[in-house]
Amino acid sequence: MTAVREYFAHIEPIAFEGKDTDNPLAYRYYDKDRVIMGKRMEDHLRPAVCYWHTFCWDGFDVFGAGTFGRPWHELEGQEMAEAKLDVAFEFFTKLGVPFFTFHDVDVMAPATNMKEHTENFARILDPIEAKMSETGLKLLWGTANVFSHPRYMSGASTNPDPEVFACTAMQIRQALDATHRLGGSNYVLWGGREGYETLLNTNLNRELDQLGRMLTLAVEHKHKIGFKGPLLIEPKPHEPTKHQYDRDVSTIYGFLSKYDLLDDVKMNIETNHATLAGLPMDHEMATAYALGIFGSIDANRGDAQNGWDTDQFWNDPLDITRSMIHFVKNGGFTTGGFNFDAKVRRQSIDAEDLFHGHIGGLDALARGLISAAAMVEDGTWTNFIDDRYAGWDGQLGRWMMTEASLEDIADKVSGGGIDPQPKSGRQEYLENLVNAYL
Amino acid sequence: MTAVREYFAHIEPIAFEGKDTDNPLAYRYYDKDRVIMGKRMEDHLRPAVCYWHTFCWDGFDVFGAGTFGRPWHELEGQEMAEAKLDVAFEFFTKLGVPFFTFHDVDVMAPATNMKEHTENFARILDPIEAKMSETGLKLLWGTANVFSHPRYMSGASTNPDPEVFACTAMQIRQALDATHRLGGSNYVLWGGREGYETLLNTNLNRELDQLGRMLTLAVEHKHKIGFKGPLLIEPKPHEPTKHQYDRDVSTIYGFLSKYDLLDDVKMNIETNHATLAGLPMDHEMATAYALGIFGSIDANRGDAQNGWDTDQFWNDPLDITRSMIHFVKNGGFTTGGFNFDAKVRRQSIDAEDLFHGHIGGLDALARGLISAAAMVEDGTWTNFIDDRYAGWDGQLGRWMMTEASLEDIADKVSGGGIDPQPKSGRQEYLENLVNAYL
Amino acid sequence: MTAVREYFAHIEPIAFEGKDTDNPLAYRYYDKDRVIMGKRMEDHLRPAVCYWHTFCWDGFDVFGAGTFGRPWHELEGQEMAEAKLDVAFEFFTKLGVPFFTFHDVDVMAPATNMKEHTENFARILDPIEAKMSETGLKLLWGTANVFSHPRYMSGASTNPDPEVFACTAMQIRQALDATHRLGGSNYVLWGGREGYETLLNTNLNRELDQLGRMLTLAVEHKHKIGFKGPLLIEPKPHEPTKHQYDRDVSTIYGFLSKYDLLDDVKMNIETNHATLAGLPMDHEMATAYALGIFGSIDANRGDAQNGWDTDQFWNDPLDITRSMIHFVKNGGFTTGGFNFDAKVRRQSIDAEDLFHGHIGGLDALARGLISAAAMVEDGTWTNFIDDRYAGWDGQLGRWMMTEASLEDIADKVSGGGIDPQPKSGRQEYLENLVNAYL
Amino acid sequence: MTAVREYFAHIEPIAFEGKDTDNPLAYRYYDKDRVIMGKRMEDHLRPAVCYWHTFCWDGFDVFGAGTFGRPWHELEGQEMAEAKLDVAFEFFTKLGVPFFTFHDVDVMAPATNMKEHTENFARILDPIEAKMSETGLKLLWGTANVFSHPRYMSGASTNPDPEVFACTAMQIRQALDATHRLGGSNYVLWGGREGYETLLNTNLNRELDQLGRMLTLAVEHKHKIGFKGPLLIEPKPHEPTKHQYDRDVSTIYGFLSKYDLLDDVKMNIETNHATLAGLPMDHEMATAYALGIFGSIDANRGDAQNGWDTDQFWNDPLDITRSMIHFVKNGGFTTGGFNFDAKVRRQSIDAEDLFHGHIGGLDALARGLISAAAMVEDGTWTNFIDDRYAGWDGQLGRWMMTEASLEDIADKVSGGGIDPQPKSGRQEYLENLVNAYL
Ligand SMILES: [Co+2]
Ligand SMILES: [Co+2]
Ligand SMILES: [Co+2]
Ligand SMILES: [Co+2]
Ligand SMILES: [Co+2]
Ligand SMILES: [Co+2]
Ligand SMILES: [Co+2]
Ligand SMILES: [Co+2]
Repeated sequence: MTAVREYFAHIEPIAFEGKDTDNPLAYRYYDKDRVIMGKRMEDHLRPAVCYWHTFCWDGFDVFGAGTFGRPWHELEGQEMAEAKLDVAFEFFTKLGVPFFTFHDVDVMAPATNMKEHTENFARILDPIEAKMSETGLKLLWGTANVFSHPRYMSGASTNPDPEVFACTAMQIRQALDATHRLGGSNYVLWGGREGYETLLNTNLNRELDQLGRMLTLAVEHKHKIGFKGPLLIEPKPHEPTKHQYDRDVSTIYGFLSKYDLLDDVKMNIETNHATLAGLPMDHEMATAYALGIFGSIDANRGDAQNGWDTDQFWNDPLDITRSMIHFVKNGGFTTGGFNFDAKVRRQSIDAEDLFHGHIGGLDALARGLISAAAMVEDGTWTNFIDDRYAGWDGQLGRWMMTEASLEDIADKVSGGGIDPQPKSGRQEYLENLVNAYL
Repeated sequence: MTAVREYFAHIEPIAFEGKDTDNPLAYRYYDKDRVIMGKRMEDHLRPAVCYWHTFCWDGFDVFGAGTFGRPWHELEGQEMAEAKLDVAFEFFTKLGVPFFTFHDVDVMAPATNMKEHTENFARILDPIEAKMSETGLKLLWGTANVFSHPRYMSGASTNPDPEVFACTAMQIRQALDATHRLGGSNYVLWGGREGYETLLNTNLNRELDQLGRMLTLAVEHKHKIGFKGPLLIEPKPHEPTKHQYDRDVSTIYGFLSKYDLLDDVKMNIETNHATLAGLPMDHEMATAYALGIFGSIDANRGDAQNGWDTDQFWNDPLDITRSMIHFVKNGGFTTGGFNFDAKVRRQSIDAEDLFHGHIGGLDALARGLISAAAMVEDGTWTNFIDDRYAGWDGQLGRWMMTEASLEDIADKVSGGGIDPQPKSGRQEYLENLVNAYL
Repeated sequence: MTAVREYFAHIEPIAFEGKDTDNPLAYRYYDKDRVIMGKRMEDHLRPAVCYWHTFCWDGFDVFGAGTFGRPWHELEGQEMAEAKLDVAFEFFTKLGVPFFTFHDVDVMAPATNMKEHTENFARILDPIEAKMSETGLKLLWGTANVFSHPRYMSGASTNPDPEVFACTAMQIRQALDATHRLGGSNYVLWGGREGYETLLNTNLNRELDQLGRMLTLAVEHKHKIGFKGPLLIEPKPHEPTKHQYDRDVSTIYGFLSKYDLLDDVKMNIETNHATLAGLPMDHEMATAYALGIFGSIDANRGDAQNGWDTDQFWNDPLDITRSMIHFVKNGGFTTGGFNFDAKVRRQSIDAEDLFHGHIGGLDALARGLISAAAMVEDGTWTNFIDDRYAGWDGQLGRWMMTEASLEDIADKVSGGGIDPQPKSGRQEYLENLVNAYL
Repeated sequence: MTAVREYFAHIEPIAFEGKDTDNPLAYRYYDKDRVIMGKRMEDHLRPAVCYWHTFCWDGFDVFGAGTFGRPWHELEGQEMAEAKLDVAFEFFTKLGVPFFTFHDVDVMAPATNMKEHTENFARILDPIEAKMSETGLKLLWGTANVFSHPRYMSGASTNPDPEVFACTAMQIRQALDATHRLGGSNYVLWGGREGYETLLNTNLNRELDQLGRMLTLAVEHKHKIGFKGPLLIEPKPHEPTKHQYDRDVSTIYGFLSKYDLLDDVKMNIETNHATLAGLPMDHEMATAYALGIFGSIDANRGDAQNGWDTDQFWNDPLDITRSMIHFVKNGGFTTGGFNFDAKVRRQSIDAEDLFHGHIGGLDALARGLISAAAMVEDGTWTNFIDDRYAGWDGQLGRWMMTEASLEDIADKVSGGGIDPQPKSGRQEYLENLVNAYL
């Protein structure tokens, strides 16, 4: 336990020191009380640290064993769970973020069956609550891990065996109740096994209906217990399965529409998952806003040359700024936040590497927010867009959108007077404009 | 004109000769009157040849000029259009397919403005009708090309300029009327410019609404003129634009749902476009059937190592059979058909290469149909699937799908009696089973 | 131990029963004594089963725990190693393959340091030798796992720390010696950590020199101990690292050339790794033959929609036949073989699934060999290729390849008489031709 | 001609105005005389504008006709060529770059056969020379377009028909002579058709030998005429062909080694082509420097979500800086330069869009150079790397690299004293460090 207690002891709380600091353990851009567009930076970003990558993962990958040697991984059961809680909250506090996130299995003593699961998860809630109260940390969202246990190998809600659906229901009920009790702002569902390995052994229609049913049950339960936050689905196109049903924002929109869930369910968009789906992050954000289902963000990035979920810290200024433009323009979060669903590399084995990762990630978001806000506030860009579509606010545009038939419009063209003049899309000018704000 | 008339003169009509023939200009598997599962092969496949790749394209690519030297490309205006019509119908007839497909601009004399467009398109309809009547060929579907003309560079329905929307409406009205007049079974919309090059110059919300509006107008017009076939949207994720709104089947389902178009619009799924979207063809087909929007197929393939739309002939027996399983299981087409939206390679410059491509493509579909039908009829596979999900037809499954609350289910698990036993997914066995039918 | 002994007890040895058998535990195509082009099928294919996927992996993935419950995984140390040896050889024998392959760590009792590693690996060699002698099984190749232990996290030969290079040398020495003692036909090197995670912390030049040095040391040692087989490098572009130096066949050719290793080192090409590198398998095989470095094959496949190494059984008839054409045309293997570096899916948890996977994989290779041999023997295709390039055997071709200067050739064109006539590449015809042999 | 003369008349020469300017037609970072690490910015970057994208392309793509309406495209023959020369040099001069680049066919009157080609190309050389002398512009490199004409459809050097090889030789001879006459710094070869569409119709060995032969002929000719610059091969993995032999830097290194061309041939690396090959640009640059074949750069970018060569202006600060680190560290160019092989989007139809694209591209390079130079000069990063590999400069490292045998090293490990201690790779720290310089 001494080793656990000392793990972060040599790291001072991280302070904002401005962009010219030489101190790698300080923020250059994240100044939580700085007001941007009338709101504190912390209130814009609502940053959260996740439990799993930083406190549960030991550095293993498919080709090799763990490298991190975290001292709490040498403990067992409830003792391990509480030691982990201590270091986690020490980390959250030193980093200075207001939120954290977890799966049920991340925070509790490991369980070998459903009964133990229920008991062990229940047992850690008091300690968590005490820590939250002591530190002021808040829960951005909770979730249930219904993908790691072998019972979920063929799906959780979408399992061919209804008994597995029942186990899933039980975990979600308990995790949703716990999230409610801890004052969580949202509840997340990520369907790591909700998909298929091969269509050859899959009844797609049935599985979609099962998934719709589970969502419906969770929504009904949420209302029953009085949980006010939205349920959030996290899209991912594949991995671990060959194909995951919750592929991307647009796919999930169709799914929610089919099962009549649009009022209660929103999106938790992860950058790397967008990349895996072949979609840029700004597209997924703009689409979620356009469809009215924007919820929260798992901030990370993949590697454009690697085809798996690398979950690295998102730190590309241009990519973040392009995404932040949509964030700023649409009013940012209501209940959501930027959750660092990101992990240090397997070779980054030291306690301080965990800080480097999160500091860099939070600074990058802050910097992107500053750039995007400046661009949106300046007006040059906004005016450009408004001008480009101005014709649609005119008589012809309004008439075609609301009154005219196909024939009316066709006749109007035949009758003359319609002769569209090409106009430059000015893409290079706009790309230069964004770069001027970076 | 002599050269045009003689272009296919040396090719005899293509006959079925069985799988052991040495004649490369004969069918090995496509025997149109052979009955499979109670239906003639031709009635299952409803094969169509497209106009554009075979009669309009001259072999150019982005890095080089045309290579084909088709004699009709040396003619102009209506003369060119009628010569092309002659060779096209000679080809369709010699190949022995029942259907063809076209865009407005494929069949008509080139036009430089909307007025000419209307006139030139109108002028070719009588000759087409005469050819159809003479040969017995039928129109699988018609469509309007609202992507090639420079006026559509920034979108057709989704253009920032409402005047371009008007031109689009005009072309669609005329093409839909023509399709109706020619007895077409379906009307297709492919949104080659309905997307964006950069979100920096794009109002996503507006453009989606514009696209929804155009679809609605087309649906209303269809009903007005009494056209019975469905409208079909053809998904493609990108190319020519950076991002196309009609990305894939699931995305379009959500879109149709949002704009209340699910009753009238279905999918024309193209194999290569599925590949570009990161989705296997069997997934797209199974999904379209599951969502009730399966319509027709543009049969082709891409190249797994190349990231653009190569539109090659689909001829991989395993991939086709995997797709055909869903086709057979779900009852195949109602109004749709297999349209060869496929082109010979730029080096395949001879008249006979056009036959090699289509013969191979049609034979591959026939072979896949035979394999898939045998597999589905045999019952081994169907029984495997039914057994795998049998629990959902039992008491627990039905109760959870219809009556129970999340709490009820969770309590049942707590109460004991739920202890799911893992069961092999048997993927390797099933893959071997499919191969046994190839 | 009873459970271990009984694991495969209910499975009979796998027999060839022909393509119409209904028995899923029989070969349909693999008839080892059938003679194809003058050689027994077994002597063509030289199939090998690998230790790691089938006897070491417990079904875990990055998102979930092991699912297989193999009884020998419950044992420890040397007892576990010997129990595994028993089941492995029972499996090899029942499957009826002549070869197996292993990494040092696959076969031995787990070790926590280099000293234990050496001892534990040494201790299993007698039992292996006894099993080989008892069963007649032979070793296709051995190798050292220098990627799983945390000491190799930053590279084995290419580690910034020379002490890790030393440990690598020690493992390779022992594994090479063991391979020699067991009569292995080849020795393989796969550089799972020989690459980088980021160029920001990497001295590329130094690491390439280190890798070259290790290869040179291994080659010298091979000669010293009198090992006659080649060293084989296995290309893979990435995973687990962001970038692996041994990317693909062409890259490794350049590397071998730079470090003067072309005489002693050849390729062990893996299908899935070719896919990850953006290259079709037939390309990698044809290239290795063209460059004179073809060695052996790790037969498996990836998933075209998933970007990681899925290591599935290779069973696509068209893809295999296209690859087999190059195999047959170039005389197949000398020392190499088809090693099933393939694993059953995580849901395929039963003993018999291991048989389904390997039976399907071996049948698919046999079928591909039969198809490709028929095509090559028939002559139609070979003649087509010869005709296409015949000009290069003529006077102009020979003159330009051996004597003429750029100026001579240019002057000859200016002087007239050179007027190339376009000739169809006949791709569609050739694709149909291949399909006729499937 | 008036329209041509006036095309850029309203644009003033582009000046450096500093990063806070509001003028989109000014440089924010590119200040050509500013000295960075002892060298003028212009001398570091050696920027060049290419002829083809900006003066030859009319905005067509595979799905639509040209959109640009450049007035010189309405002219013909030599008049067109000379008008184009005028506007091109007006553009180069107003932009303020020191270099340009061209293919033979870009600058000359179009030709329909080899004889006309020779004459038309020869006829434009005097006017070019005059323009260069008048403006002071210099030629970074010339090249021959041996991919657009239909005669090259099946390859240029790698054509099955030796007569096409002869035509290739003729074009290369003339283009190399012209480049020499115009004082070009390098001569480039890009093998747009040097690859294959399918291995089914390809003799890979023969084609590689033909390509090697052509390179050898060009090298011999270069020496004969006294051209001092290097020949540069431009890697691209595919497009237009399915597979191009000049795939990437490492592949070409192996090719040059096999045909003994390493002394005379270097790389012209294009960013977008690296992307298409699945390789980051910094990798290709670092590899070319490591292998001693770094030559020049075609600066552009692709789109991570699109699989074709979009040739956009490279303007991502992080990606450029990461690449510039290797550029700065290795001493930058000798004969090479940054050639803008980049084009404005098809919707960017105005004269000023051409300026926006190039200004943004040049500013981005300047900014990246400033950032990378600051980082390298600061020393923090350099010291980190040196420390990381310091062990290799010690006794153990030197002994293993030069003297020890595999056995010696293994024995040393057995003897004790080798116990490698894991050390963090500090990737997150280093990524933050780079961002601090942006
Ligand atoms: Co996430
Ligand atoms: Co992720
Ligand atoms: Co299509
Ligand atoms: Co297509
Ligand atoms: Co392998
Ligand atoms: Co692999
Ligand atoms: Co280039
Ligand atoms: Co390019």
